[in-house]
Amino acid sequence: MGLIVQKFGGSSVADAEKIHRAARRAIATKEKGNQVCVVVSAMGDATDELLALAKKVCENPPKREMDQLLATGEQVTIALMAMAIHAQGHEAISFTGGQIGLVTDGAFTKARIQSINKQRIFEQLAKGKIVIVAGFQGVTPEGDYTTLGRGGSNATLVALGAVLEADVCENYTDVDGIFTADPRIVKGARKIERISYDEMLELSGLGASVLQTRAVEFAKKYNVPIHVRNSQNESEGTWIVAETANMEHIVVSGAALKQDLIRVTIKNVPDRPGVAAKMFGDIAGANIVVDDIIQTVSDDNTANVSFTVEHGDVHDIKPVVQRLVKELGERTSAIYQEGLAKVSVVGVGMRVHTGVAQRMFKALADGKINIQNITTSEIKISCIINKDEGPRALQIVHEAFALGAGK
Amino acid sequence: MGLIVQKFGGSSVADAEKIHRAARRAIATKEKGNQVCVVVSAMGDATDELLALAKKVCENPPKREMDQLLATGEQVTIALMAMAIHAQGHEAISFTGGQIGLVTDGAFTKARIQSINKQRIFEQLAKGKIVIVAGFQGVTPEGDYTTLGRGGSNATLVALGAVLEADVCENYTDVDGIFTADPRIVKGARKIERISYDEMLELSGLGASVLQTRAVEFAKKYNVPIHVRNSQNESEGTWIVAETANMEHIVVSGAALKQDLIRVTIKNVPDRPGVAAKMFGDIAGANIVVDDIIQTVSDDNTANVSFTVEHGDVHDIKPVVQRLVKELGERTSAIYQEGLAKVSVVGVGMRVHTGVAQRMFKALADGKINIQNITTSEIKISCIINKDEGPRALQIVHEAFALGAGK
Repeated sequence: MGLIVQKFGGSSVADAEKIHRAARRAIATKEKGNQVCVVVSAMGDATDELLALAKKVCENPPKREMDQLLATGEQVTIALMAMAIHAQGHEAISFTGGQIGLVTDGAFTKARIQSINKQRIFEQLAKGKIVIVAGFQGVTPEGDYTTLGRGGSNATLVALGAVLEADVCENYTDVDGIFTADPRIVKGARKIERISYDEMLELSGLGASVLQTRAVEFAKKYNVPIHVRNSQNESEGTWIVAETANMEHIVVSGAALKQDLIRVTIKNVPDRPGVAAKMFGDIAGANIVVDDIIQTVSDDNTANVSFTVEHGDVHDIKPVVQRLVKELGERTSAIYQEGLAKVSVVGVGMRVHTGVAQRMFKALADGKINIQNITTSEIKISCIINKDEGPRALQIVHEAFALGAGK
Repeated sequence: MGLIVQKFGGSSVADAEKIHRAARRAIATKEKGNQVCVVVSAMGDATDELLALAKKVCENPPKREMDQLLATGEQVTIALMAMAIHAQGHEAISFTGGQIGLVTDGAFTKARIQSINKQRIFEQLAKGKIVIVAGFQGVTPEGDYTTLGRGGSNATLVALGAVLEADVCENYTDVDGIFTADPRIVKGARKIERISYDEMLELSGLGASVLQTRAVEFAKKYNVPIHVRNSQNESEGTWIVAETANMEHIVVSGAALKQDLIRVTIKNVPDRPGVAAKMFGDIAGANIVVDDIIQTVSDDNTANVSFTVEHGDVHDIKPVVQRLVKELGERTSAIYQEGLAKVSVVGVGMRVHTGVAQRMFKALADGKINIQNITTSEIKISCIINKDEGPRALQIVHEAFALGAGK
């Protein structure tokens, strides 16, 4: 008995049959005496198809219109899911983000959730209905549609879990859980049983595609347990939970690969206070996420600043950088290096174990993979490498830490 | 110089190229110094595809969820249209029904427009933008999506024309205008240059698919001229305008065929005051449109009441009729006769010319087509016939009044 929020990703609702299967699972959960709220993504490749359609019409579409377009993907699924539950003899009601007052900021295509009006959901749950909510989308206070970025349905899942004070957020997908590395790339990748929010946060930020960083942050903040499960079977998946003491016994929990990065290097930046703050302030103002920032200072009172952005942000970052270059001085210039990737290892055990970085660098060196940059945090080590070598690097690192073997 | 509302139907926005063509037309209209508001339908067969998808999931889906689903069709088009205008170097902004406060009643799948908040549109027009509005859809005061029934984008077109006090509503479609009969069925059908609201009302109600009855009613009430044009060429289409004196010179303006009707006959209805009002009150309460009502009284103080409904309403009408039969008395029963059609002729000239009905009946009789029922109004004559004979009957009637020859 409890309140369970379930999310079915695109591959779990890809056709009428799969929607019925997801509906059965929601009904089964309800019949065990739970109140059930279901979050769904767009069906299968629906979002990609909409993106392709947009690209056919306009090379660089206004983002407001892009979100107006993309939001339809989830709206189709919620209606069909409610119909499927109805067809199976149970009551359901579907809501778009706007219909449950899921208000976001105005950062189209990567908006952040500000508030949810839980009243309308509780009313319907109290009537015994299964409530279906469109993932990935919200509205601005003015009523414009926004989307939460790739994987944003998970942000919806966890935000609902937090707001409704759910007992668990079940994230149904087409894999058995979180793996020590992407099993499509790495032979011998193994399902993780329990992982801490912090580790998951690092892995998500590094390209593990199952859960978006923001979703995990939210779950951590509100201490909502997430259970990542396979919609095709009944087996236990991976639980993402608060850190416990014995988690530190494992040095490295997982490895990840972030593909298709661009490194931007701004050369001859005047080396005076406030310049970095202005640069990254302007970039953040354009809602672009940067990572792997490295600053090197020259003799002549200038610095070179480099950072990585995802390839998809290239359209957005260039005008911002161009403007900065112009403002910063005559000698300042920018270089864009495409075709990069980032391989990383993550583990809370790094806090107490030493030698992790060396082991990683040696394994990559033995594999003749050139490391272009290194960045670290308390619980992760990342190496920027050539994109072409990404998959092989991930396999090498996975083996170097014997991740496939378990603890 | 003026304010022009243009509507592009599904076939005029069926793919990226056609959307660009529609965008060019909107831009051309704007460049002549007009303010332009564009209403669009779902792309090509998008609505039918959504209906098919729903049917795969649920035999008889809840109507609220059906509207939640169908509303996505137009939302896709508005976003793409705004992108296309943007790609052509002009500014546009798209709005769903809800975003311009297009509020309807709660009659899902056939809702009626109650109000539109024109403020948001005027603001954007004043900024020089082309405003794109999703046809066919609205929201209830509670924020649930509704749709306006088949052809509902035309209702949106005319309602916007009225609210914005537009100079003209241009209805772009894939035909050259209104024809004397459906040219896909009748050889020799001819484009009409000008037709009165009343004639168009009758023709729309009778199955002429270009314009929905409700749209024409609205246009008549607010005296908004509608220009039905072909989106593929620049030629003049058909103007739908207020009646003028010389229109009466034409006896019959057009002929129409309504296919796939069901006749419901309720037998042995107690013949006392208020019974008919109750019956048709209950049916109207279920939002079902009935037509061709005929009541015949027997000797024993009971009556037989028959009427036609569209085949698509069969799911809705049966429970209402069953309940009525139960309430009205032990001997009351209902018969459903499927496979019917209705052929009609329309013309304001009937008010002053005689012999029109005879000419129609004789032509059908000469063609060996059996007339099952006849209903008439001041400016139309309708005959219920077998569905199989519908197309032939339309051709016969069209020739009997020499409609292909012009005045």
